[in-house]
Amino acid sequence: MFSPIKNIKVYEQVIEQIKEMIDKGTLKKGDKLPSERDLVEQLQVSRASIREALRALEVIGLIECRQGEGNFIKSSFQDNLFEPLSIMFMLEGINSEEILELRKILEVGASGLAAKRITKEQLMELKEIIKRFEDCEDEEVNVTIDKEFHYKIAEYSGNALIFNILRTVSILVDDFIKDARKLIIVQKENREVLFSQHKEIYVAIELHNSVAARRAMREHLDYTNKYSKMF
Amino acid sequence: MFSPIKNIKVYEQVIEQIKEMIDKGTLKKGDKLPSERDLVEQLQVSRASIREALRALEVIGLIECRQGEGNFIKSSFQDNLFEPLSIMFMLEGINSEEILELRKILEVGASGLAAKRITKEQLMELKEIIKRFEDCEDEEVNVTIDKEFHYKIAEYSGNALIFNILRTVSILVDDFIKDARKLIIVQKENREVLFSQHKEIYVAIELHNSVAARRAMREHLDYTNKYSKMF
Repeated sequence: MFSPIKNIKVYEQVIEQIKEMIDKGTLKKGDKLPSERDLVEQLQVSRASIREALRALEVIGLIECRQGEGNFIKSSFQDNLFEPLSIMFMLEGINSEEILELRKILEVGASGLAAKRITKEQLMELKEIIKRFEDCEDEEVNVTIDKEFHYKIAEYSGNALIFNILRTVSILVDDFIKDARKLIIVQKENREVLFSQHKEIYVAIELHNSVAARRAMREHLDYTNKYSKMF
Repeated sequence: MFSPIKNIKVYEQVIEQIKEMIDKGTLKKGDKLPSERDLVEQLQVSRASIREALRALEVIGLIECRQGEGNFIKSSFQDNLFEPLSIMFMLEGINSEEILELRKILEVGASGLAAKRITKEQLMELKEIIKRFEDCEDEEVNVTIDKEFHYKIAEYSGNALIFNILRTVSILVDDFIKDARKLIIVQKENREVLFSQHKEIYVAIELHNSVAARRAMREHLDYTNKYSKMF
Protein backbone atom coordinates (compact mmCIF):
# COMPACT_ATOMS: atom_id res chain seq x y z
CA MET A 1 0.00 0.00 0.00
CA PHE A 2 1.12 3.52 -0.61
CA SER A 3 1.12 5.96 2.28
CA PRO A 4 -0.24 9.42 1.58
CA ILE A 5 2.39 11.96 0.68
CA LYS A 6 2.37 14.91 3.03
CA ASN A 7 1.70 18.09 1.12
CA ILE A 8 4.40 20.21 2.72
CA LYS A 9 6.10 22.28 0.08
CA VAL A 10 9.84 21.99 -0.32
CA TYR A 11 10.47 25.67 0.38
CA GLU A 12 8.48 25.34 3.63
CA GLN A 13 10.79 22.52 4.70
CA VAL A 14 13.81 24.67 3.93
CA ILE A 15 12.38 27.50 6.06
CA GLU A 16 11.59 25.03 8.85
CA GLN A 17 15.20 23.79 8.87
CA ILE A 18 16.59 27.33 9.01
CA LYS A 19 14.18 28.18 11.84
CA GLU A 20 15.28 25.10 13.75
CA MET A 21 18.90 26.18 13.43
CA ILE A 22 17.96 29.58 14.84
CA ASP A 23 15.98 27.97 17.66
CA LYS A 24 18.97 25.76 18.56
CA GLY A 25 21.32 28.72 18.41
CA THR A 26 23.37 27.33 15.50
CA LEU A 27 22.42 30.45 13.53
CA LYS A 28 22.49 33.80 15.30
CA LYS A 29 21.83 37.43 14.45
CA GLY A 30 24.27 38.68 11.82
CA ASP A 31 25.46 35.15 10.87
CA LYS A 32 26.11 34.25 7.26
CA LEU A 33 24.02 31.46 5.79
CA PRO A 34 25.65 28.68 3.74
CA SER A 35 25.82 29.51 0.03
CA GLU A 36 22.90 28.59 -2.23
CA ARG A 37 25.03 25.81 -3.70
CA ASP A 38 25.87 24.41 -0.25
CA LEU A 39 22.22 24.56 0.77
CA VAL A 40 21.27 22.65 -2.40
CA GLU A 41 23.78 19.94 -1.48
CA GLN A 42 23.03 19.79 2.24
CA LEU A 43 19.24 19.80 1.91
CA GLN A 44 19.09 17.78 -1.32
CA VAL A 45 16.51 19.99 -2.96
CA SER A 46 16.47 22.02 -6.15
CA ARG A 47 18.10 25.41 -6.42
CA ALA A 48 14.69 26.89 -7.28
CA SER A 49 13.26 25.72 -3.94
CA ILE A 50 16.23 27.19 -2.07
CA ARG A 51 15.76 30.52 -3.84
CA GLU A 52 12.05 30.55 -3.07
CA ALA A 53 12.73 29.92 0.60
CA LEU A 54 15.44 32.59 0.76
CA ARG A 55 13.23 35.17 -0.97
CA ALA A 56 10.43 34.47 1.45
CA LEU A 57 12.78 34.89 4.41
CA GLU A 58 14.03 38.11 2.89
CA VAL A 59 10.51 39.51 2.56
CA ILE A 60 9.61 38.73 6.16
CA GLY A 61 12.81 40.49 7.13
CA LEU A 62 14.68 37.54 8.60
CA ILE A 63 17.62 37.58 6.22
CA GLU A 64 19.25 40.12 3.98
CA CYS A 65 20.97 39.33 0.70
CA ARG A 66 24.12 41.39 0.26
CA GLN A 67 25.20 41.54 -3.38
CA GLY A 68 28.30 39.40 -3.91
CA GLU A 69 28.58 38.55 -0.21
CA GLY A 70 25.77 36.10 0.38
CA ASN A 71 22.80 35.81 2.71
CA PHE A 72 22.92 36.96 6.32
CA ILE A 73 20.58 36.69 9.30
CA LYS A 74 19.63 40.30 9.91
CA SER A 75 21.01 41.89 13.04
CA SER A 76 18.10 44.25 13.51
CA PHE A 77 14.40 43.61 13.06
CA GLN A 78 12.98 47.05 13.17
CA ASP A 79 10.92 46.58 10.06
CA ASN A 80 10.25 42.87 9.72
CA LEU A 81 6.71 43.30 10.93
CA PHE A 82 5.99 46.22 8.67
CA GLU A 83 5.32 44.33 5.46
CA PRO A 84 2.70 41.92 6.86
CA LEU A 85 1.11 44.61 9.02
CA SER A 86 0.82 47.13 6.20
CA ILE A 87 -0.71 44.55 3.86
CA MET A 88 -3.17 43.45 6.54
CA PHE A 89 -3.97 47.10 7.05
CA MET A 90 -4.86 47.55 3.39
CA LEU A 91 -6.85 44.36 3.03
CA GLU A 92 -8.79 44.62 6.25
CA GLY A 93 -9.59 48.23 5.46
CA ILE A 94 -8.28 49.24 8.86
CA ASN A 95 -8.77 52.95 9.39
CA SER A 96 -6.25 55.33 10.85
CA GLU A 97 -8.26 55.64 14.05
CA GLU A 98 -7.63 51.97 14.74
CA ILE A 99 -3.88 52.38 14.36
CA LEU A 100 -3.88 55.42 16.64
CA GLU A 101 -5.90 53.47 19.19
CA LEU A 102 -3.42 50.59 19.15
CA ARG A 103 -0.50 52.96 19.42
CA LYS A 104 -2.09 54.63 22.43
CA ILE A 105 -2.62 51.32 24.24
CA LEU A 106 0.98 50.27 23.60
CA GLU A 107 2.58 53.62 24.44
CA VAL A 108 0.59 54.05 27.64
CA GLY A 109 1.63 50.51 28.64
CA ALA A 110 5.26 51.15 27.68
CA SER A 111 5.49 54.35 29.72
CA GLY A 112 4.13 52.53 32.77
CA LEU A 113 6.83 49.89 32.37
CA ALA A 114 9.53 52.48 31.69
CA ALA A 115 8.64 54.26 34.95
CA LYS A 116 9.31 51.00 36.78
CA ARG A 117 12.47 49.97 34.99
CA ILE A 118 14.36 53.00 33.73
CA THR A 119 18.00 53.24 34.79
CA LYS A 120 19.88 56.39 35.82
CA GLU A 121 21.76 56.49 32.50
CA GLN A 122 18.54 56.15 30.53
CA LEU A 123 16.93 58.93 32.59
CA MET A 124 19.81 61.22 31.67
CA GLU A 125 19.33 60.45 27.98
CA LEU A 126 15.61 61.17 28.24
CA LYS A 127 16.29 64.44 30.07
CA GLU A 128 18.71 65.47 27.35
CA ILE A 129 16.04 64.87 24.67
CA ILE A 130 13.55 67.03 26.60
CA LYS A 131 16.17 69.78 26.81
CA ARG A 132 16.79 69.65 23.05
CA PHE A 133 13.06 69.87 22.44
CA GLU A 134 12.86 72.95 24.69
CA ASP A 135 15.80 74.70 23.05
CA CYS A 136 15.02 73.95 19.42
CA GLU A 137 13.19 76.58 17.39
CA ASP A 138 12.97 74.57 14.17
CA GLU A 139 9.57 72.88 14.07
CA GLU A 140 10.69 70.16 11.67
CA VAL A 141 13.60 69.21 13.87
CA ASN A 142 11.21 69.22 16.82
CA VAL A 143 9.05 66.61 15.12
CA THR A 144 12.13 64.35 14.95
CA ILE A 145 13.01 65.00 18.59
CA ASP A 146 9.39 64.29 19.53
CA LYS A 147 9.58 60.89 17.81
CA GLU A 148 12.90 60.13 19.50
CA PHE A 149 11.33 60.82 22.89
CA HIS A 150 8.51 58.34 22.29
CA TYR A 151 10.88 55.82 20.75
CA LYS A 152 13.20 55.94 23.79
CA ILE A 153 10.34 55.41 26.24
CA ALA A 154 9.30 52.32 24.26
CA GLU A 155 12.89 51.08 24.43
CA TYR A 156 13.17 51.77 28.16
CA SER A 157 10.04 49.70 28.76
CA GLY A 158 12.61 46.90 28.80
CA ASN A 159 10.34 44.73 26.65
CA ALA A 160 11.86 44.11 23.20
CA LEU A 161 8.59 42.71 21.86
CA ILE A 162 6.60 45.82 22.80
CA PHE A 163 9.40 48.01 21.49
CA ASN A 164 9.45 46.26 18.09
CA ILE A 165 5.69 46.23 17.61
CA LEU A 166 5.37 49.84 18.69
CA ARG A 167 8.05 50.88 16.25
CA THR A 168 6.26 49.09 13.42
CA VAL A 169 2.98 50.71 14.40
CA SER A 170 4.64 54.13 14.43
CA ILE A 171 5.95 53.59 10.90
CA LEU A 172 2.40 52.62 9.90
CA VAL A 173 1.12 55.85 11.44
CA ASP A 174 3.70 57.87 9.52
CA ASP A 175 3.03 55.97 6.34
CA PHE A 176 -0.75 55.98 6.32
CA ILE A 177 -1.51 59.29 7.95
CA LYS A 178 0.55 61.21 5.47
CA ASP A 179 -1.26 64.47 5.99
CA ALA A 180 -0.12 64.42 9.57
CA ARG A 181 2.68 66.62 8.26
CA LYS A 182 0.13 69.39 8.58
CA LEU A 183 0.27 68.58 12.24
CA ILE A 184 3.62 70.35 12.29
CA ILE A 185 1.88 73.63 11.71
CA VAL A 186 -0.68 72.87 14.35
CA GLN A 187 2.14 71.95 16.68
CA LYS A 188 3.77 75.30 16.16
CA GLU A 189 0.86 77.02 17.84
CA ASN A 190 0.71 74.39 20.52
CA ARG A 191 4.40 74.03 21.21
CA GLU A 192 4.14 75.07 24.82
CA VAL A 193 1.41 72.51 25.45
CA LEU A 194 3.44 69.73 23.85
CA PHE A 195 6.55 70.66 25.77
CA SER A 196 4.77 70.66 29.10
CA GLN A 197 3.12 67.31 28.26
CA HIS A 198 6.49 65.74 27.47
CA LYS A 199 7.93 67.22 30.62
CA GLU A 200 5.08 65.76 32.67
CA ILE A 201 5.73 62.29 31.21
CA TYR A 202 9.42 62.67 31.96
CA VAL A 203 8.87 63.78 35.56
CA ALA A 204 6.51 60.87 36.24
CA ILE A 205 9.04 58.40 34.83
CA GLU A 206 11.84 60.04 36.85
CA LEU A 207 9.77 59.58 40.00
CA HIS A 208 9.20 55.93 38.96
CA ASN A 209 5.48 56.67 39.21
CA SER A 210 3.86 54.25 36.76
CA VAL A 211 0.31 55.47 37.28
CA ALA A 212 1.27 59.10 36.65
CA ALA A 213 3.43 58.15 33.64
CA ARG A 214 0.54 56.24 32.09
CA ARG A 215 -1.88 59.08 32.72
CA ALA A 216 0.50 61.72 31.33
CA MET A 217 1.12 59.65 28.19
CA ARG A 218 -2.61 59.02 27.75
CA GLU A 219 -3.43 62.73 27.99
CA HIS A 220 -0.62 63.60 25.58
CA LEU A 221 -1.77 61.08 22.96
CA ASP A 222 -5.43 62.06 23.32
CA TYR A 223 -4.27 65.59 22.52
CA THR A 224 -2.14 64.70 19.47
CA ASN A 225 -4.57 62.06 18.15
CA LYS A 226 -7.26 64.74 18.04
CA TYR A 227 -5.21 66.49 15.36
CA SER A 228 -4.28 63.31 13.48
CA LYS A 229 -7.95 62.45 13.15
CA MET A 230 -8.61 65.72 11.36
CA PHE A 231 -6.92 64.40 8.22
CA MET B 1 26.46 59.57 -18.87
CA PHE B 2 24.94 56.52 -17.37
CA SER B 3 22.47 56.91 -14.54
CA PRO B 4 22.81 54.50 -11.66
CA ILE B 5 20.57 51.48 -11.93
CA LYS B 6 18.31 51.20 -8.93
CA ASN B 7 18.90 47.96 -7.14
CA ILE B 8 15.29 46.93 -6.71
CA LYS B 9 14.90 43.22 -7.25
CA VAL B 10 12.40 41.98 -9.79
CA TYR B 11 10.39 40.00 -7.23
CA GLU B 12 10.11 43.15 -5.11
CA GLN B 13 8.61 44.99 -8.06
CA VAL B 14 6.11 42.17 -8.56
CA ILE B 15 5.10 42.38 -4.88
CA GLU B 16 4.85 46.18 -5.17
CA GLN B 17 2.48 45.89 -8.13
CA ILE B 18 0.27 43.38 -6.32
CA LYS B 19 0.22 45.63 -3.26
CA GLU B 20 -0.80 48.59 -5.41
CA MET B 21 -3.70 46.60 -6.84
CA ILE B 22 -4.81 45.79 -3.30
CA ASP B 23 -4.46 49.41 -2.26
CA LYS B 24 -6.56 50.54 -5.22
CA GLY B 25 -9.16 47.89 -4.50
CA THR B 26 -8.60 46.01 -7.78
CA LEU B 27 -7.69 42.95 -5.73
CA LYS B 28 -9.78 42.13 -2.68
CA LYS B 29 -9.91 39.45 0.01
CA GLY B 30 -10.64 36.04 -1.52
CA ASP B 31 -9.90 37.18 -5.09
CA LYS B 32 -8.05 34.93 -7.50
CA LEU B 33 -4.75 36.23 -8.85
CA PRO B 34 -3.98 35.98 -12.57
CA SER B 35 -2.21 32.71 -13.47
CA GLU B 36 1.58 32.53 -13.30
CA ARG B 37 1.66 32.55 -17.11
CA ASP B 38 -0.53 35.67 -17.30
CA LEU B 39 1.60 37.40 -14.69
CA VAL B 40 4.72 36.59 -16.72
CA GLU B 41 3.13 38.17 -19.78
CA GLN B 42 1.61 41.19 -18.03
CA LEU B 43 4.65 42.08 -15.96
CA GLN B 44 7.24 41.04 -18.56
CA VAL B 45 9.46 39.26 -16.10
CA SER B 46 10.74 35.71 -15.80
CA ARG B 47 8.62 32.91 -14.40
CA ALA B 48 11.24 32.41 -11.67
CA SER B 49 10.74 35.99 -10.43
CA ILE B 50 6.97 35.53 -10.40
CA ARG B 51 7.33 32.33 -8.39
CA GLU B 52 9.69 33.98 -5.91
CA ALA B 53 7.24 36.82 -5.40
CA LEU B 54 4.30 34.46 -4.96
CA ARG B 55 6.17 32.29 -2.46
CA ALA B 56 7.11 35.32 -0.43
CA LEU B 57 3.49 36.49 -0.39
CA GLU B 58 2.44 33.01 0.65
CA VAL B 59 4.87 32.98 3.57
CA ILE B 60 3.72 36.35 4.90
CA GLY B 61 0.19 35.00 4.68
CA LEU B 62 -1.16 37.32 2.01
CA ILE B 63 -2.01 34.66 -0.55
CA GLU B 64 -2.73 30.97 -0.50
CA CYS B 65 -1.91 28.58 -3.31
CA ARG B 66 -4.68 26.03 -3.83
CA GLN B 67 -3.46 22.99 -5.72
CA GLY B 68 -4.82 22.99 -9.25
CA GLU B 69 -6.92 26.11 -8.65
CA GLY B 70 -4.38 28.90 -8.56
CA ASN B 71 -3.39 31.67 -6.17
CA PHE B 72 -5.91 33.53 -4.04
CA ILE B 73 -5.78 36.56 -1.78
CA LYS B 74 -6.51 35.05 1.63
CA SER B 75 -9.83 35.91 3.16
CA SER B 76 -8.61 35.68 6.73
CA PHE B 77 -5.35 36.87 8.23
CA GLN B 78 -5.34 35.25 11.59
CA ASP B 79 -1.85 33.90 11.26
CA ASN B 80 -0.02 36.19 8.88
CA LEU B 81 1.83 37.88 11.71
CA PHE B 82 2.78 34.68 13.41
CA GLU B 83 5.74 33.73 11.24
CA PRO B 84 7.64 37.03 11.54
CA LEU B 85 6.77 37.43 15.23
CA SER B 86 7.84 33.92 16.16
CA ILE B 87 11.14 34.29 14.31
CA MET B 88 11.77 37.66 15.94
CA PHE B 89 10.97 36.02 19.24
CA MET B 90 13.63 33.36 18.71
CA LEU B 91 16.31 35.68 17.42
CA GLU B 92 15.85 38.46 19.94
CA GLY B 93 15.79 35.90 22.71
CA ILE B 94 12.53 37.34 23.98
CA ASN B 95 11.45 35.57 27.14
CA SER B 96 7.96 34.37 27.91
CA GLU B 97 7.50 37.09 30.51
CA GLU B 98 7.77 39.68 27.76
CA ILE B 99 5.03 38.00 25.71
CA LEU B 100 2.76 37.76 28.75
CA GLU B 101 3.40 41.44 29.48
CA LEU B 102 2.45 42.44 25.94
CA ARG B 103 -0.64 40.27 26.03
CA LYS B 104 -1.72 41.88 29.29
CA ILE B 105 -1.37 45.40 27.89
CA LEU B 106 -3.36 44.48 24.78
CA GLU B 107 -6.08 42.51 26.56
CA VAL B 108 -6.62 45.16 29.22
CA GLY B 109 -6.89 47.76 26.45
CA ALA B 110 -9.23 45.55 24.41
CA SER B 111 -11.59 44.96 27.32
CA GLY B 112 -11.82 48.70 27.96
CA LEU B 113 -12.78 49.23 24.32
CA ALA B 114 -15.22 46.29 24.34
CA ALA B 115 -17.01 47.81 27.35
CA LYS B 116 -17.57 50.95 25.29
CA ARG B 117 -18.58 49.32 22.02
CA ILE B 118 -20.17 45.95 22.65
CA THR B 119 -23.61 45.42 21.07
CA LYS B 120 -26.57 43.63 22.62
CA GLU B 121 -26.07 40.59 20.36
CA GLN B 122 -22.38 40.40 21.27
CA LEU B 123 -23.24 40.64 24.98
CA MET B 124 -25.57 37.67 24.60
CA GLU B 125 -22.82 35.64 22.97
CA LEU B 126 -20.41 36.53 25.77
CA LYS B 127 -23.00 35.60 28.40
CA GLU B 128 -23.52 32.25 26.71
CA ILE B 129 -19.76 31.53 26.85
CA ILE B 130 -19.71 32.34 30.57
CA LYS B 131 -22.62 29.96 31.10
CA ARG B 132 -20.86 27.16 29.25
CA PHE B 133 -17.77 27.73 31.39
CA GLU B 134 -19.88 27.49 34.55
CA ASP B 135 -21.68 24.31 33.45
CA CYS B 136 -18.72 22.41 32.03
CA GLU B 137 -16.96 19.89 34.24
CA ASP B 138 -14.28 18.87 31.74
CA GLU B 139 -11.16 20.91 32.48
CA GLU B 140 -9.74 20.54 28.99
CA VAL B 141 -12.93 21.80 27.41
CA ASN B 142 -12.87 24.65 29.91
CA VAL B 143 -9.45 25.72 28.67
CA THR B 144 -10.97 26.05 25.18
CA ILE B 145 -13.96 28.01 26.47
CA ASP B 146 -11.58 30.25 28.43
CA LYS B 147 -9.68 31.04 25.23
CA GLU B 148 -12.91 31.71 23.36
CA PHE B 149 -13.95 34.21 26.04
CA HIS B 150 -10.72 36.20 25.68
CA TYR B 151 -10.83 35.92 21.91
CA LYS B 152 -14.37 37.32 21.76
CA ILE B 153 -13.52 40.30 23.96
CA ALA B 154 -10.63 41.11 21.62
CA GLU B 155 -13.03 40.90 18.68
CA TYR B 156 -15.64 43.09 20.40
CA SER B 157 -13.02 45.76 20.96
CA GLY B 158 -14.09 46.74 17.46
CA ASN B 159 -10.47 47.24 16.45
CA ALA B 160 -9.39 44.66 13.83
CA LEU B 161 -5.73 45.58 14.23
CA ILE B 162 -5.74 44.94 17.99
CA PHE B 163 -7.74 41.76 17.44
CA ASN B 164 -5.27 40.39 14.90
CA ILE B 165 -2.14 41.22 16.89
CA LEU B 166 -3.65 39.86 20.09
CA ARG B 167 -4.55 36.63 18.37
CA THR B 168 -1.01 36.24 17.09
CA VAL B 169 0.40 36.95 20.52
CA SER B 170 -1.93 34.34 22.04
CA ILE B 171 -0.69 31.73 19.57
CA LEU B 172 2.85 32.70 20.56
CA VAL B 173 1.94 32.20 24.21
CA ASP B 174 0.48 28.76 23.46
CA ASP B 175 3.44 27.86 21.30
CA PHE B 176 6.26 28.97 23.51
CA ILE B 177 4.88 28.35 26.96
CA LYS B 178 4.21 24.72 26.24
CA ASP B 179 4.28 23.68 29.86
CA ALA B 180 1.31 25.92 30.43
CA ARG B 181 -0.67 22.74 29.89
CA LYS B 182 0.20 22.05 33.49
CA LEU B 183 -1.83 25.13 34.16
CA ILE B 184 -4.90 23.01 33.49
CA ILE B 185 -4.26 21.07 36.67
CA VAL B 186 -3.66 24.23 38.61
CA GLN B 187 -6.84 25.66 37.15
CA LYS B 188 -8.80 22.68 38.39
CA GLU B 189 -8.15 23.71 41.96
CA ASN B 190 -8.80 27.33 41.17
CA ARG B 191 -11.84 26.92 39.00
CA GLU B 192 -14.09 28.96 41.25
CA VAL B 193 -11.64 31.85 41.22
CA LEU B 194 -11.35 31.79 37.43
CA PHE B 195 -15.10 31.63 37.00
CA SER B 196 -15.72 34.60 39.27
CA GLN B 197 -12.96 36.59 37.52
CA HIS B 198 -14.53 35.94 34.12
CA LYS B 199 -17.92 36.84 35.52
CA GLU B 200 -16.52 40.11 36.88
CA ILE B 201 -15.09 41.01 33.47
CA TYR B 202 -18.42 40.16 31.86
CA VAL B 203 -20.47 42.26 34.31
CA ALA B 204 -18.19 45.28 33.84
CA ILE B 205 -18.50 45.02 30.06
CA GLU B 206 -22.28 44.58 30.35
CA LEU B 207 -22.44 47.79 32.39
CA HIS B 208 -20.28 49.47 29.73
CA ASN B 209 -17.89 50.34 32.53
CA SER B 210 -14.48 50.59 30.84
CA VAL B 211 -12.51 51.31 33.98
CA ALA B 212 -13.97 48.30 35.79
CA ALA B 213 -13.53 46.06 32.73
CA ARG B 214 -9.88 47.02 32.48
CA ARG B 215 -9.31 46.46 36.19
CA ALA B 216 -11.07 43.08 36.17
CA MET B 217 -9.05 41.91 33.15
CA ARG B 218 -5.81 43.14 34.73
CA GLU B 219 -6.47 41.26 37.96
CA HIS B 220 -7.44 38.12 36.06
CA LEU B 221 -4.27 38.16 33.95
CA ASP B 222 -2.05 38.94 36.93
CA TYR B 223 -3.53 35.81 38.48
CA THR B 224 -3.06 33.50 35.48
CA ASN B 225 0.34 34.96 34.51
CA LYS B 226 1.59 34.04 37.97
CA TYR B 227 1.10 30.39 37.04
CA SER B 228 2.49 30.72 33.52
CA LYS B 229 5.69 32.14 34.93
CA MET B 230 6.24 29.04 37.02
CA PHE B 231 7.22 27.07 33.95
